[in-house]
Amino acid sequence: MLHTDSLIHYTLHLADNALILSQRNSEWCGHGPVLEQDIAITNISLDLLGQARNFYQYAAILIGGTASEDKLAYHRNENEFKNCLLAEQPKGDWAVTILRQFIFSAYQYLLYRQLAKSTDHQLAAIASKAVKEVTYHLRWSSEWVIRLGDGTAESHARMVNAIQDLWMFTGELFLPAPYETEIQNQGIITGVEKLQQEWITTIENTFSEATLALPTDTGWMQTGGKTGRHTEYLGRILAELQYMQRIYPNCEW
Amino acid sequence: MLHTDSLIHYTLHLADNALILSQRNSEWCGHGPVLEQDIAITNISLDLLGQARNFYQYAAILIGGTASEDKLAYHRNENEFKNCLLAEQPKGDWAVTILRQFIFSAYQYLLYRQLAKSTDHQLAAIASKAVKEVTYHLRWSSEWVIRLGDGTAESHARMVNAIQDLWMFTGELFLPAPYETEIQNQGIITGVEKLQQEWITTIENTFSEATLALPTDTGWMQTGGKTGRHTEYLGRILAELQYMQRIYPNCEW
Repeated sequence: MLHTDSLIHYTLHLADNALILSQRNSEWCGHGPVLEQDIAITNISLDLLGQARNFYQYAAILIGGTASEDKLAYHRNENEFKNCLLAEQPKGDWAVTILRQFIFSAYQYLLYRQLAKSTDHQLAAIASKAVKEVTYHLRWSSEWVIRLGDGTAESHARMVNAIQDLWMFTGELFLPAPYETEIQNQGIITGVEKLQQEWITTIENTFSEATLALPTDTGWMQTGGKTGRHTEYLGRILAELQYMQRIYPNCEW
Repeated sequence: MLHTDSLIHYTLHLADNALILSQRNSEWCGHGPVLEQDIAITNISLDLLGQARNFYQYAAILIGGTASEDKLAYHRNENEFKNCLLAEQPKGDWAVTILRQFIFSAYQYLLYRQLAKSTDHQLAAIASKAVKEVTYHLRWSSEWVIRLGDGTAESHARMVNAIQDLWMFTGELFLPAPYETEIQNQGIITGVEKLQQEWITTIENTFSEATLALPTDTGWMQTGGKTGRHTEYLGRILAELQYMQRIYPNCEW
Protein backbone atom coordinates (compact mmCIF):
# COMPACT_ATOMS: atom_id res chain seq x y z
CA MET A 1 0.00 0.00 0.00
CA LEU A 2 1.31 3.44 -0.90
CA HIS A 3 1.72 5.92 1.92
CA THR A 4 -1.06 8.07 0.50
CA ASP A 5 -3.36 5.10 -0.11
CA SER A 6 -3.54 4.23 3.57
CA LEU A 7 -4.15 7.88 4.48
CA ILE A 8 -6.99 8.05 1.93
CA HIS A 9 -8.51 4.80 3.23
CA TYR A 10 -8.22 6.00 6.81
CA THR A 11 -9.77 9.38 6.05
CA LEU A 12 -12.64 7.69 4.22
CA HIS A 13 -13.08 5.34 7.17
CA LEU A 14 -13.44 8.33 9.52
CA ALA A 15 -15.85 10.02 7.10
CA ASP A 16 -17.96 6.89 6.58
CA ASN A 17 -18.28 6.29 10.32
CA ALA A 18 -19.65 9.81 10.78
CA LEU A 19 -21.89 9.76 7.68
CA ILE A 20 -23.53 6.41 8.36
CA LEU A 21 -24.21 7.12 12.03
CA SER A 22 -25.54 10.56 11.06
CA GLN A 23 -27.90 8.88 8.62
CA ARG A 24 -29.12 6.39 11.23
CA ASN A 25 -29.76 9.14 13.78
CA SER A 26 -31.52 11.27 11.17
CA GLU A 27 -34.20 8.58 11.02
CA TRP A 28 -35.44 10.10 14.29
CA CYS A 29 -35.79 13.51 12.64
CA GLY A 30 -39.44 14.40 13.14
CA HIS A 31 -40.08 11.14 15.02
CA GLY A 32 -38.38 11.68 18.38
CA PRO A 33 -40.26 10.81 21.57
CA VAL A 34 -40.42 14.45 22.73
CA LEU A 35 -39.81 17.70 20.86
CA GLU A 36 -36.72 18.58 22.87
CA GLN A 37 -34.97 15.26 22.24
CA ASP A 38 -35.98 15.28 18.59
CA ILE A 39 -33.95 18.49 18.30
CA ALA A 40 -31.02 17.05 20.27
CA ILE A 41 -30.60 13.86 18.22
CA THR A 42 -31.02 15.77 14.95
CA ASN A 43 -28.35 18.24 16.04
CA ILE A 44 -25.99 15.35 16.77
CA SER A 45 -26.84 13.98 13.34
CA LEU A 46 -25.93 17.33 11.75
CA ASP A 47 -22.65 17.56 13.70
CA LEU A 48 -21.70 14.11 12.43
CA LEU A 49 -22.67 15.06 8.88
CA GLY A 50 -20.45 18.14 9.18
CA GLN A 51 -17.54 15.96 10.35
CA ALA A 52 -18.16 13.57 7.46
CA ARG A 53 -18.06 16.47 4.98
CA ASN A 54 -14.74 17.70 6.36
CA PHE A 55 -13.17 14.26 6.08
CA TYR A 56 -14.61 13.68 2.57
CA GLN A 57 -13.33 17.05 1.39
CA TYR A 58 -9.85 16.17 2.61
CA ALA A 59 -10.04 12.69 1.05
CA ALA A 60 -11.10 14.31 -2.26
CA ILE A 61 -8.00 16.52 -2.14
CA LEU A 62 -5.76 13.50 -1.43
CA ILE A 63 -7.36 11.54 -4.28
CA GLY A 64 -7.23 14.48 -6.69
CA GLY A 65 -8.73 14.57 -10.16
CA THR A 66 -12.49 14.90 -10.23
CA ALA A 67 -13.06 13.48 -6.74
CA SER A 68 -15.47 15.50 -4.60
CA GLU A 69 -17.19 15.16 -1.25
CA ASP A 70 -20.52 14.43 -2.92
CA LYS A 71 -19.06 11.79 -5.24
CA LEU A 72 -17.40 10.08 -2.28
CA ALA A 73 -20.64 10.06 -0.30
CA TYR A 74 -23.07 9.31 -3.10
CA HIS A 75 -21.21 7.31 -5.75
CA ARG A 76 -19.29 4.63 -3.90
CA ASN A 77 -20.64 1.12 -3.60
CA GLU A 78 -21.33 -0.80 -0.43
CA ASN A 79 -18.03 -2.70 -0.45
CA GLU A 80 -16.11 0.58 -0.71
CA PHE A 81 -17.61 1.91 2.52
CA LYS A 82 -15.28 1.52 5.51
CA ASN A 83 -17.54 2.37 8.47
CA CYS A 84 -17.66 0.12 11.53
CA LEU A 85 -20.60 -2.27 11.63
CA LEU A 86 -21.80 -0.53 14.81
CA ALA A 87 -22.67 2.62 12.85
CA GLU A 88 -24.93 0.84 10.36
CA GLN A 89 -27.04 -1.16 12.83
CA PRO A 90 -30.74 -0.18 12.88
CA LYS A 91 -31.73 2.72 15.11
CA GLY A 92 -33.93 0.31 17.13
CA ASP A 93 -35.86 1.83 20.01
CA TRP A 94 -34.71 4.91 21.91
CA ALA A 95 -32.56 2.75 24.23
CA VAL A 96 -30.61 1.27 21.29
CA THR A 97 -30.10 4.70 19.70
CA ILE A 98 -28.90 6.17 23.00
CA LEU A 99 -26.58 3.26 23.81
CA ARG A 100 -25.02 3.24 20.33
CA GLN A 101 -24.47 7.00 20.49
CA PHE A 102 -22.88 6.70 23.92
CA ILE A 103 -20.58 3.82 22.89
CA PHE A 104 -19.62 5.62 19.71
CA SER A 105 -19.17 9.08 21.23
CA ALA A 106 -16.93 7.65 23.94
CA TYR A 107 -14.84 6.06 21.17
CA GLN A 108 -14.81 9.18 18.96
CA TYR A 109 -13.92 11.39 21.90
CA LEU A 110 -10.81 9.37 22.76
CA LEU A 111 -9.84 8.86 19.12
CA TYR A 112 -10.26 12.50 18.09
CA ARG A 113 -8.22 13.67 21.07
CA GLN A 114 -5.29 11.61 19.75
CA LEU A 115 -6.00 12.62 16.16
CA ALA A 116 -5.91 16.29 17.17
CA LYS A 117 -2.18 15.71 17.83
CA SER A 118 -1.62 14.08 14.43
CA THR A 119 1.42 14.91 12.32
CA ASP A 120 -1.10 15.30 9.48
CA HIS A 121 -2.18 18.89 10.05
CA GLN A 122 -5.43 18.59 8.13
CA LEU A 123 -6.63 15.57 10.14
CA ALA A 124 -5.50 17.30 13.32
CA ALA A 125 -7.51 20.41 12.46
CA ILE A 126 -10.70 18.49 11.65
CA ALA A 127 -10.37 16.38 14.80
CA SER A 128 -9.74 19.26 17.14
CA LYS A 129 -12.84 21.06 15.87
CA ALA A 130 -14.89 17.84 16.08
CA VAL A 131 -13.78 16.93 19.58
CA LYS A 132 -15.73 19.90 20.96
CA GLU A 133 -18.93 18.59 19.37
CA VAL A 134 -18.24 15.04 20.50
CA THR A 135 -17.68 16.20 24.08
CA TYR A 136 -21.27 17.39 24.07
CA HIS A 137 -22.56 14.18 22.40
CA LEU A 138 -20.81 12.11 25.05
CA ARG A 139 -22.26 14.13 27.91
CA TRP A 140 -25.76 14.10 26.42
CA SER A 141 -25.78 10.36 25.66
CA SER A 142 -24.25 9.33 28.99
CA GLU A 143 -26.92 11.35 30.82
CA TRP A 144 -29.56 9.44 28.86
CA VAL A 145 -27.88 6.07 29.59
CA ILE A 146 -28.12 6.90 33.29
CA ARG A 147 -31.69 8.16 33.00
CA LEU A 148 -32.87 5.01 31.22
CA GLY A 149 -30.69 2.49 33.06
CA ASP A 150 -31.54 3.94 36.47
CA GLY A 151 -35.15 4.69 35.44
CA THR A 152 -38.23 2.47 35.39
CA ALA A 153 -38.16 -1.34 35.23
CA GLU A 154 -39.18 -1.06 31.57
CA SER A 155 -36.48 1.45 30.60
CA HIS A 156 -33.83 -0.57 32.49
CA ALA A 157 -34.90 -3.77 30.68
CA ARG A 158 -34.68 -1.99 27.34
CA MET A 159 -31.14 -0.82 28.10
CA VAL A 160 -30.15 -4.38 29.05
CA ASN A 161 -31.53 -5.57 25.70
CA ALA A 162 -29.71 -2.78 23.86
CA ILE A 163 -26.41 -3.84 25.45
CA GLN A 164 -27.07 -7.43 24.40
CA ASP A 165 -27.80 -6.32 20.81
CA LEU A 166 -24.88 -3.95 20.33
CA TRP A 167 -22.01 -5.30 22.40
CA MET A 168 -20.83 -7.71 19.69
CA PHE A 169 -20.07 -4.69 17.46
CA THR A 170 -17.77 -2.93 19.92
CA GLY A 171 -14.72 -5.14 19.35
CA GLU A 172 -14.30 -3.88 15.80
CA LEU A 173 -13.69 -0.34 17.00
CA PHE A 174 -10.33 -1.39 18.41
CA LEU A 175 -9.26 -4.01 15.88
CA PRO A 176 -7.08 -2.08 13.41
CA ALA A 177 -7.69 -2.50 9.69
CA PRO A 178 -4.50 -2.73 7.56
CA TYR A 179 -4.72 0.98 6.66
CA GLU A 180 -4.96 1.87 10.36
CA THR A 181 -1.88 -0.19 11.23
CA GLU A 182 -0.10 1.50 8.34
CA ILE A 183 -0.86 5.06 9.44
CA GLN A 184 0.11 4.12 12.99
CA ASN A 185 3.42 2.79 11.66
CA GLN A 186 3.90 6.09 9.84
CA GLY A 187 3.35 7.90 13.13
CA ILE A 188 0.37 9.83 11.77
CA ILE A 189 -1.61 8.86 14.87
CA THR A 190 -0.09 7.72 18.15
CA GLY A 191 -1.31 6.46 21.50
CA VAL A 192 -4.13 4.33 20.06
CA GLU A 193 -2.99 1.24 21.97
CA LYS A 194 -4.38 2.79 25.17
CA LEU A 195 -7.78 3.67 23.66
CA GLN A 196 -9.58 0.42 24.37
CA GLN A 197 -8.73 0.50 28.09
CA GLU A 198 -9.71 4.17 28.40
CA TRP A 199 -12.93 3.46 26.53
CA ILE A 200 -13.85 0.55 28.80
CA THR A 201 -13.26 2.76 31.83
CA THR A 202 -15.59 5.44 30.40
CA ILE A 203 -18.29 2.87 29.68
CA GLU A 204 -17.88 1.23 33.07
CA ASN A 205 -18.20 4.49 35.01
CA THR A 206 -21.43 5.48 33.30
CA PHE A 207 -22.88 1.96 33.41
CA SER A 208 -22.19 1.80 37.12
CA GLU A 209 -24.12 5.05 37.70
CA ALA A 210 -26.87 3.67 35.46
CA THR A 211 -27.02 0.40 37.47
CA LEU A 212 -26.13 -1.49 34.28
CA ALA A 213 -23.69 -4.40 34.16
CA LEU A 214 -20.79 -4.60 31.72
CA PRO A 215 -21.05 -7.89 29.79
CA THR A 216 -18.68 -10.38 31.42
CA ASP A 217 -18.60 -12.90 28.59
CA THR A 218 -17.75 -10.60 25.71
CA GLY A 219 -18.52 -13.43 23.27
CA TRP A 220 -18.08 -13.39 19.53
CA MET A 221 -17.19 -9.99 18.05
CA GLN A 222 -18.50 -9.06 14.60
CA THR A 223 -16.00 -7.45 12.26
CA GLY A 224 -15.56 -6.61 8.57
CA GLY A 225 -17.07 -3.15 8.13
CA LYS A 226 -13.73 -1.35 8.14
CA THR A 227 -12.64 -3.39 5.14
CA GLY A 228 -15.92 -3.21 3.23
CA ARG A 229 -17.68 -6.39 4.42
CA HIS A 230 -20.97 -5.09 5.76
CA THR A 231 -24.20 -6.36 7.28
CA GLU A 232 -27.31 -6.34 5.11
CA TYR A 233 -28.28 -2.98 6.61
CA LEU A 234 -25.70 -0.83 4.86
CA GLY A 235 -27.12 -1.56 1.40
CA ARG A 236 -30.52 -0.27 2.47
CA ILE A 237 -29.04 2.85 4.05
CA LEU A 238 -27.11 3.62 0.87
CA ALA A 239 -30.18 2.97 -1.28
CA GLU A 240 -31.97 5.72 0.66
CA LEU A 241 -29.00 8.04 0.92
CA GLN A 242 -27.81 7.76 -2.65
CA TYR A 243 -31.18 7.58 -4.40
CA MET A 244 -31.40 11.26 -5.37
CA GLN A 245 -27.85 11.44 -6.73
CA ARG A 246 -28.09 8.16 -8.60
CA ILE A 247 -31.23 9.18 -10.48
CA TYR A 248 -30.19 12.81 -10.99
CA PRO A 249 -26.39 12.62 -11.26
CA ASN A 250 -24.90 15.84 -9.83
CA CYS A 251 -28.50 17.00 -9.48
CA GLU A 252 -28.08 19.10 -12.59
CA TRP A 253 -31.48 20.44 -13.44
CA MET B 1 -64.46 34.61 22.29
CA LEU B 2 -62.68 35.49 25.51
CA HIS B 3 -59.64 37.73 25.27
CA THR B 4 -57.38 34.88 26.31
CA ASP B 5 -59.04 32.39 23.96
CA SER B 6 -58.08 34.36 20.88
CA LEU B 7 -54.52 34.76 22.18
CA ILE B 8 -54.29 31.01 22.77
CA HIS B 9 -55.65 30.24 19.29
CA TYR B 10 -53.29 32.74 17.72
CA THR B 11 -50.26 31.37 19.58
CA LEU B 12 -51.19 27.83 18.57
CA HIS B 13 -51.60 29.01 14.97
CA LEU B 14 -48.05 30.41 15.02
CA ALA B 15 -46.74 27.22 16.62
CA ASP B 16 -48.56 24.92 14.19
CA ASN B 17 -47.27 26.84 11.16
CA ALA B 18 -43.71 26.37 12.36
CA LEU B 19 -44.14 22.74 13.46
CA ILE B 20 -45.81 21.51 10.27
CA LEU B 21 -43.36 23.23 7.93
CA SER B 22 -40.51 21.93 10.08
CA GLN B 23 -41.91 18.44 9.71
CA ARG B 24 -42.22 18.77 5.92
CA ASN B 25 -38.65 20.05 5.58
CA SER B 26 -37.36 17.31 7.83
CA GLU B 27 -38.41 14.80 5.18
CA TRP B 28 -35.26 15.91 3.32
CA CYS B 29 -33.13 14.98 6.33
CA GLY B 30 -30.65 12.48 4.94
CA HIS B 31 -32.15 12.74 1.45
CA GLY B 32 -30.99 16.16 0.25
CA PRO B 33 -29.52 16.50 -3.23
CA VAL B 34 -26.06 17.43 -1.93
CA LEU B 35 -24.54 17.11 1.55
CA GLU B 36 -24.26 20.87 2.06
CA GLN B 37 -27.92 21.55 1.27
CA ASP B 38 -29.06 18.57 3.29
CA ILE B 39 -27.48 20.32 6.28
CA ALA B 40 -29.02 23.69 5.38
CA ILE B 41 -32.62 22.48 5.03
CA THR B 42 -32.33 20.38 8.19
CA ASN B 43 -31.02 23.41 10.08
CA ILE B 44 -34.01 25.44 8.89
CA SER B 45 -36.22 22.59 10.01
CA LEU B 46 -34.62 22.69 13.48
CA ASP B 47 -34.99 26.47 13.73
CA LEU B 48 -38.70 26.15 12.94
CA LEU B 49 -39.07 23.35 15.47
CA GLY B 50 -37.43 25.59 18.07
CA GLN B 51 -39.89 28.39 17.25
CA ALA B 52 -42.78 25.95 17.50
CA ARG B 53 -41.59 24.82 20.94
CA ASN B 54 -41.42 28.41 22.19
CA PHE B 55 -44.95 29.16 21.00
CA TYR B 56 -46.31 25.86 22.40
CA GLN B 57 -44.68 26.50 25.77
CA TYR B 58 -46.32 29.90 25.91
CA ALA B 59 -49.69 28.48 24.82
CA ALA B 60 -49.39 25.84 27.55
CA ILE B 61 -48.89 28.58 30.14
CA LEU B 62 -51.92 30.49 28.82
CA ILE B 63 -54.04 27.32 28.88
CA GLY B 64 -52.81 26.32 32.32
CA GLY B 65 -53.59 23.05 34.09
CA THR B 66 -51.77 20.04 32.69
CA ALA B 67 -51.16 21.54 29.25
CA SER B 68 -47.60 21.07 27.96
CA GLU B 69 -45.69 21.67 24.74
CA ASP B 70 -45.58 17.95 24.01
CA LYS B 71 -49.30 17.48 24.63
CA LEU B 72 -50.10 20.38 22.32
CA ALA B 73 -47.89 19.00 19.56
CA TYR B 74 -48.68 15.32 19.96
CA HIS B 75 -52.19 15.03 21.35
CA ARG B 76 -54.36 17.39 19.33
CA ASN B 77 -56.43 16.15 16.43
CA GLU B 78 -56.27 17.30 12.84
CA ASN B 79 -59.21 19.73 13.15
CA GLU B 80 -57.52 21.43 16.13
CA PHE B 81 -54.43 22.30 14.10
CA LYS B 82 -54.41 25.89 12.85
CA ASN B 83 -51.53 25.95 10.39
CA CYS B 84 -51.93 27.45 6.93
CA LEU B 85 -52.53 24.95 4.14
CA LEU B 86 -49.27 26.07 2.52
CA ALA B 87 -47.24 24.50 5.35
CA GLU B 88 -48.78 21.06 4.99
CA GLN B 89 -48.41 20.64 1.23
CA PRO B 90 -46.05 17.82 0.17
CA LYS B 91 -42.35 18.66 -0.04
CA GLY B 92 -42.46 17.86 -3.77
CA ASP B 93 -39.19 18.22 -5.66
CA TRP B 94 -36.40 20.56 -4.60
CA ALA B 95 -38.01 23.45 -6.51
CA VAL B 96 -41.29 23.09 -4.58
CA THR B 97 -39.48 22.89 -1.24
CA ILE B 98 -37.38 25.96 -2.06
CA LEU B 99 -40.32 28.01 -3.34
CA ARG B 100 -42.50 27.16 -0.34
CA GLN B 101 -39.68 28.05 2.04
CA PHE B 102 -39.11 31.36 0.24
CA ILE B 103 -42.82 32.28 0.21
CA PHE B 104 -43.16 31.32 3.84
CA SER B 105 -39.94 32.92 5.08
CA ALA B 106 -40.86 36.20 3.37
CA TYR B 107 -44.19 36.04 5.20
CA GLN B 108 -42.69 35.05 8.55
CA TYR B 109 -40.03 37.72 8.29
CA LEU B 110 -42.58 40.53 7.84
CA LEU B 111 -44.97 39.08 10.43
CA TYR B 112 -42.35 38.47 13.11
CA ARG B 113 -41.00 41.99 12.69
CA GLN B 114 -44.43 43.33 13.62
CA LEU B 115 -44.89 40.73 16.32
CA ALA B 116 -41.58 41.75 17.87
CA LYS B 117 -43.32 45.07 18.71
CA SER B 118 -46.34 43.31 20.27
CA THR B 119 -47.87 44.56 23.51
CA ASP B 120 -47.74 40.91 24.57
CA HIS B 121 -44.18 40.72 25.86
CA GLN B 122 -43.88 36.96 25.57
CA LEU B 123 -44.90 36.91 21.89
CA ALA B 124 -42.61 39.88 21.26
CA ALA B 125 -39.66 38.08 22.85
CA ILE B 126 -40.20 34.87 20.86
CA ALA B 127 -40.64 36.79 17.60
CA SER B 128 -37.59 38.97 18.02
CA LYS B 129 -35.41 35.93 18.61
CA ALA B 130 -37.01 34.11 15.66
CA VAL B 131 -36.69 37.00 13.22
CA LYS B 132 -32.90 36.55 13.23
CA GLU B 133 -33.28 32.94 12.14
CA VAL B 134 -35.91 33.80 9.54
CA THR B 135 -33.67 36.50 8.06
CA TYR B 136 -31.21 33.75 7.23
CA HIS B 137 -33.95 31.41 5.88
CA LEU B 138 -35.18 34.19 3.61
CA ARG B 139 -31.72 34.94 2.26
CA TRP B 140 -30.92 31.27 1.73
CA SER B 141 -34.21 30.42 0.00
CA SER B 142 -34.22 33.54 -2.20
CA GLU B 143 -30.70 32.71 -3.38
CA TRP B 144 -31.97 29.26 -4.34
CA VAL B 145 -35.03 30.69 -6.13
CA ILE B 146 -32.65 32.78 -8.23
CA ARG B 147 -30.25 29.90 -8.82
CA LEU B 148 -33.05 27.59 -10.01
CA GLY B 149 -35.18 30.19 -11.82
CA ASP B 150 -32.19 31.67 -13.62
CA GLY B 151 -30.52 28.25 -14.05
CA THR B 152 -31.00 25.56 -16.67
CA ALA B 153 -34.14 25.14 -18.81
CA GLU B 154 -35.08 22.19 -16.62
CA SER B 155 -34.64 24.01 -13.30
CA HIS B 156 -36.55 27.03 -14.64
CA ALA B 157 -39.42 24.79 -15.79
CA ARG B 158 -39.55 23.15 -12.37
CA MET B 159 -39.77 26.53 -10.65
CA VAL B 160 -42.62 27.54 -12.98
CA ASN B 161 -44.43 24.31 -12.03
CA ALA B 162 -43.78 24.95 -8.36
CA ILE B 163 -45.33 28.42 -8.62
CA GLN B 164 -48.35 26.91 -10.34
CA ASP B 165 -48.73 24.29 -7.58
CA LEU B 166 -48.28 26.58 -4.59
CA TRP B 167 -49.69 29.97 -5.54
CA MET B 168 -53.26 29.06 -4.63
CA PHE B 169 -52.15 28.60 -1.01
CA THR B 170 -50.66 32.09 -0.61
CA GLY B 171 -53.95 33.96 -0.22
CA GLU B 172 -54.68 32.30 3.10
CA LEU B 173 -51.59 33.85 4.67
CA PHE B 174 -53.25 37.27 4.55
CA LEU B 175 -56.86 36.34 5.17
CA PRO B 176 -57.33 36.79 8.92
CA ALA B 177 -59.02 34.03 10.93
CA PRO B 178 -61.46 35.27 13.61
CA TYR B 179 -58.83 34.95 16.34
CA GLU B 180 -56.39 37.04 14.27
CA THR B 181 -58.95 39.81 13.79
CA GLU B 182 -59.63 39.67 17.52
CA ILE B 183 -56.00 40.06 18.57
CA GLN B 184 -55.60 42.88 16.04
CA ASN B 185 -58.64 44.58 17.58
CA GLN B 186 -57.02 44.19 20.98
CA GLY B 187 -53.92 45.91 19.61
CA ILE B 188 -51.71 42.90 20.39
CA ILE B 189 -50.30 43.10 16.87
CA THR B 190 -50.43 46.16 14.62
CA GLY B 191 -49.47 47.04 11.06
CA VAL B 192 -50.61 43.73 9.57
CA GLU B 193 -52.71 45.49 6.91
CA LYS B 194 -49.48 46.44 5.07
CA LEU B 195 -48.01 42.93 5.15
CA GLN B 196 -49.52 41.60 1.93
CA GLN B 197 -48.22 44.50 -0.16
CA GLU B 198 -44.74 44.27 1.41
CA TRP B 199 -44.76 40.53 0.86
CA ILE B 200 -45.70 40.86 -2.82
CA THR B 201 -42.86 43.35 -3.29
CA THR B 202 -40.37 40.91 -1.73
CA ILE B 203 -41.59 38.06 -3.94
CA GLU B 204 -41.59 40.26 -7.04
CA ASN B 205 -38.02 41.48 -6.53
CA THR B 206 -36.62 37.98 -6.19
CA PHE B 207 -38.75 36.56 -9.00
CA SER B 208 -37.56 39.30 -11.30
CA GLU B 209 -33.91 38.43 -10.57
CA ALA B 210 -34.81 34.76 -11.07
CA THR B 211 -36.49 35.52 -14.45
CA LEU B 212 -39.75 34.15 -13.04
CA ALA B 213 -43.14 35.74 -13.64
CA LEU B 214 -45.60 36.56 -10.88
CA PRO B 215 -48.95 34.87 -11.66
CA THR B 216 -51.21 37.49 -13.25
CA ASP B 217 -54.47 35.59 -12.81
CA THR B 218 -54.25 34.79 -9.13
CA GLY B 219 -57.20 32.44 -9.47
CA TRP B 220 -59.01 30.57 -6.73
CA MET B 221 -57.33 30.75 -3.33
CA GLN B 222 -57.53 27.74 -1.01
CA THR B 223 -58.32 28.50 2.62
CA GLY B 224 -59.43 26.73 5.79
CA GLY B 225 -56.26 25.58 7.50
CA LYS B 226 -56.23 28.42 10.03
CA THR B 227 -59.62 27.30 11.32
CA GLY B 228 -58.92 23.57 11.27
CA ARG B 229 -60.18 22.57 7.82
CA HIS B 230 -57.17 20.88 6.26
CA THR B 231 -56.15 19.09 3.09
CA GLU B 232 -55.78 15.33 3.21
CA TYR B 233 -52.04 15.77 3.79
CA LEU B 234 -52.19 16.98 7.38
CA GLY B 235 -53.65 13.71 8.66
CA ARG B 236 -50.73 11.78 7.25
CA ILE B 237 -48.19 14.21 8.68
CA LEU B 238 -49.77 13.91 12.12
CA ALA B 239 -49.91 10.13 11.85
CA GLU B 240 -46.12 10.13 11.41
CA LEU B 241 -45.43 12.88 13.90
CA GLN B 242 -47.69 11.66 16.67
CA TYR B 243 -47.16 7.92 16.28
CA MET B 244 -44.56 7.54 19.05
CA GLN B 245 -46.51 9.58 21.59
CA ARG B 246 -49.83 7.95 20.81
CA ILE B 247 -48.52 4.43 21.33
CA TYR B 248 -46.29 5.32 24.30
CA PRO B 249 -48.15 8.19 26.01
CA ASN B 250 -45.59 10.52 27.61
CA CYS B 251 -42.99 7.99 26.51
CA GLU B 252 -42.82 6.67 30.03
CA TRP B 253 -40.77 3.53 29.95
